[in-house]
Amino acid sequence: MSGIGFERLGSDGTARRGRLDTAHGSVATPAFMPVGTAATVKAMAPEAVRETGAEIVLANTYHLMLQPTAERIAGLGGLHEFMNWQSPILTDSGGFQVMSLAKLRQLDESGVRFRSHLDGSSHELTPERAIEIQALLGSDISMVLDECTSYPASEDDAAKSMRLSLRWAERCLAVSRPPPGQGLFGIVQGSTYGELRAESAAGLIDLGFDGYAIGGLAVGEGQTEMFRVLDVSLPQLPAERPRYLMGVGKPADIVGAVGRGIDMFDCVLPTRSGRTGQAFTAGGALNIRNARHREDPRPLEDGCPCAACRSYARAYLHHLFRAKEMLGPMLLTTHNLTYYQRLMAELRAAIEVGRFAEFAADFADRQAAGDIEPL
Amino acid sequence: MSGIGFERLGSDGTARRGRLDTAHGSVATPAFMPVGTAATVKAMAPEAVRETGAEIVLANTYHLMLQPTAERIAGLGGLHEFMNWQSPILTDSGGFQVMSLAKLRQLDESGVRFRSHLDGSSHELTPERAIEIQALLGSDISMVLDECTSYPASEDDAAKSMRLSLRWAERCLAVSRPPPGQGLFGIVQGSTYGELRAESAAGLIDLGFDGYAIGGLAVGEGQTEMFRVLDVSLPQLPAERPRYLMGVGKPADIVGAVGRGIDMFDCVLPTRSGRTGQAFTAGGALNIRNARHREDPRPLEDGCPCAACRSYARAYLHHLFRAKEMLGPMLLTTHNLTYYQRLMAELRAAIEVGRFAEFAADFADRQAAGDIEPL
Repeated sequence: MSGIGFERLGSDGTARRGRLDTAHGSVATPAFMPVGTAATVKAMAPEAVRETGAEIVLANTYHLMLQPTAERIAGLGGLHEFMNWQSPILTDSGGFQVMSLAKLRQLDESGVRFRSHLDGSSHELTPERAIEIQALLGSDISMVLDECTSYPASEDDAAKSMRLSLRWAERCLAVSRPPPGQGLFGIVQGSTYGELRAESAAGLIDLGFDGYAIGGLAVGEGQTEMFRVLDVSLPQLPAERPRYLMGVGKPADIVGAVGRGIDMFDCVLPTRSGRTGQAFTAGGALNIRNARHREDPRPLEDGCPCAACRSYARAYLHHLFRAKEMLGPMLLTTHNLTYYQRLMAELRAAIEVGRFAEFAADFADRQAAGDIEPL
Repeated sequence: MSGIGFERLGSDGTARRGRLDTAHGSVATPAFMPVGTAATVKAMAPEAVRETGAEIVLANTYHLMLQPTAERIAGLGGLHEFMNWQSPILTDSGGFQVMSLAKLRQLDESGVRFRSHLDGSSHELTPERAIEIQALLGSDISMVLDECTSYPASEDDAAKSMRLSLRWAERCLAVSRPPPGQGLFGIVQGSTYGELRAESAAGLIDLGFDGYAIGGLAVGEGQTEMFRVLDVSLPQLPAERPRYLMGVGKPADIVGAVGRGIDMFDCVLPTRSGRTGQAFTAGGALNIRNARHREDPRPLEDGCPCAACRSYARAYLHHLFRAKEMLGPMLLTTHNLTYYQRLMAELRAAIEVGRFAEFAADFADRQAAGDIEPL
C-alpha cells in the first residue's frame, strides 16, 4: 500500500507514544479526533477546532453521501477545501450510521441498501462504493465498510457478522488506490468474544492495512467489558501500525484504553455534551444549567486556556443556556474539546517520561475528589 | 450632565461624520450597533463581533431585567465584564420590548406592569427603575423609558402617548446620575405627525440630553413615510448632539437616513437574517438556502474580507443550512455584520470626501443591478 506513516516514538508499558504522517500533515498520538459529522464540527469554526489542539477530525461518509453527496464535494475540490480544514481527516465508511440512522435497511453479501433518514430516498453502500466515496472526499484515512455487530450478540451471530465484515474488508482493499499520504484501516469485529476478535485481527493482518481499528465497542457493554475486549484484542495487532478505538469515549475510557495501547479515538461526547450544557473538568463533569452556577464568577475550570475559561464566568455561561443563546453551546464545545485535547497532551507527556501509571492513578483520584454533578 | 462626548468631524449636505467618546472608548459615526439582546450578539463571539468592525453594541433592558436580572449582572462586575465586550454598550430602556413581548401589560402614568414572556412572573418598569437598571448594567448610553406609539395611531392617541413619554423622560433625567463617559438619550415620539414630532423634540431639548433618538419608526410605515418623518424631525434637533434612529434598518434605509443626518442605528436584520440564511451583498440580498447555490464555488461576495467569504464557497454555506448546522448561522451572521460595518465605513468615507450623493446614487444602482432573490 502507498499508505500513511506511523512512527513509534516511545512507550510506557503497553501505552504508546507515536506520530501519524499523512498527506495533510502529522498527528501526535495518542490522539483524539473531534467528530465533524456533516463536514463541520458542530458549533465550531475550524480555526477554533484547531486552537483546541486538535490535529485531525473525523467526518461521516453516511451523512456526506446523502448531502451534499461525495460527487459534489469532489467537484468543489474535496472535503478539506469544502470545510476549510487543511489538516488530516479520517472518514468512517458509513456502516455504523447506516445501521443506526437509515430506514428500511436490507443487508446481504453485496452490501446494504437503505433509505435516507432525511428524505426517504434509496441508496446503496457496498464495500467498493464506500471506498469510492471516501476517495472522492479525499480522506487521509479511509475505513473499510463493516457491519457493526449489534450488542449483545450470540457467538454465532457475532461470528457470521465478523466474517462478513472480513470479506467486505478484502473487497475494500481490492479496489482501494490511495495516493501517497493516504491510507486505509481495517476494523476488528467479533463482539465480546475473544476468539472471534483474534480471528478478525488475524484475517485483517493477512490482508495488510495501514492501521487497525477496534469496532463494535462502546455500544452498551460497559467499561469493564470494553477493557477486557481490548486486553484480548490489542496483543493480536502489529505494534508498528496505529490502533484506533472507534466511538470512544468518556475521559476515563480514554485513559484506560491509552494504557492498553490505543493510539486514536473519536467520540461525539465532548461536542454533544457541550451543546446540552455539560462541561468536562479535571474534577469531573458539571452541568452549567444547574441553578447553583447562576451567580458563580469562576471560570468553568481554573487554569484552562480555552476561550470560554479565559473570558467568561460560569454565571454568564449559565445565563446563555437559560436564554437558549447559541454562544452557550459554542463556548462549552470549545471548552470540552480543549479539555479532551489537554488530556491527550497530558497522556502523551506522561508516556514520554515513563509516568503513565502515576498519571492514570492521579486522574482517577482527581475525578473521584471532584464536584461531579449528576447529569 | 456628566455625559458622553460627541465631536462633529465633518459634513456633506445634511449627512454628518462624527465621533462618540464614552467611558469604554470611541465610536466613529455614522455607526451601526449590532443587537446583543440577552448580553450576546446571537451566534457570535464578541471578538468576532469586534472583527466585523463594530465599535458599539446594543443590549436590551427588558430581557436582562428578567434574566439574569440587572442586580446579578452588577454583582458580576457589570454588563461589559459579564459579556466580555470592553467597548461601548448602549442599552434600550425596555419600553419597546414590554409592548412587543410581555404579557398582561397595564400601562399608566406611573409606568408599566407586565408579566414575563418567559415564566409569567410579575414585573414593573417605571422611568426611575429603567434608569436604575441601566445604571446597574453599567451602560455607556442609557435610553429614557418611553411608550413606543403603536402604528397607525390617531393624532390624538399619538399626542397623548408622546406627552406621556415626555413626562417619563423628565422623570428619567431627574434620577439619572451617569458617571463621566456615560450618558442618557431622549427619544422623540409623535408617530407620523410633524407637529407632534416638533413638540416632542422641543420638550426633550428643553430638558437637555446627551443625544436624541428618533423612536416609533420602522414599525410598518414604510421607507417613504419614515424618510418624511426624518425630514421634519431632524431639523428640530441640535446639531452638536448625536442622533440615533432606533431599530433601523435595511441597508437602503440606512443610506437614506445617513443622508438626512442620522448618526447611529441598530437593527436585528443582519443577525436575524443571517440565522435564516439571508446574506446581504452589494448586489442585494441572496438566500443561501436556494438550490441554485448548491454547487457554486464562489464566496457570498467577492472582495468581502469576512471569515465566511475568505474561506467558504456558497455551496458549503448552502450545505450547512440544509444540514441545519450551527456554523451556517455563525458564518452568515459574521458576513452580514461585516457587510453592515463596511457599508458604514463607506458612508463615513463618502461624507469625508464630500461625495455622499454620488455614493448614495451608486449604492442604489448596484442594488438595482444585483441578483436580488425573493426571500
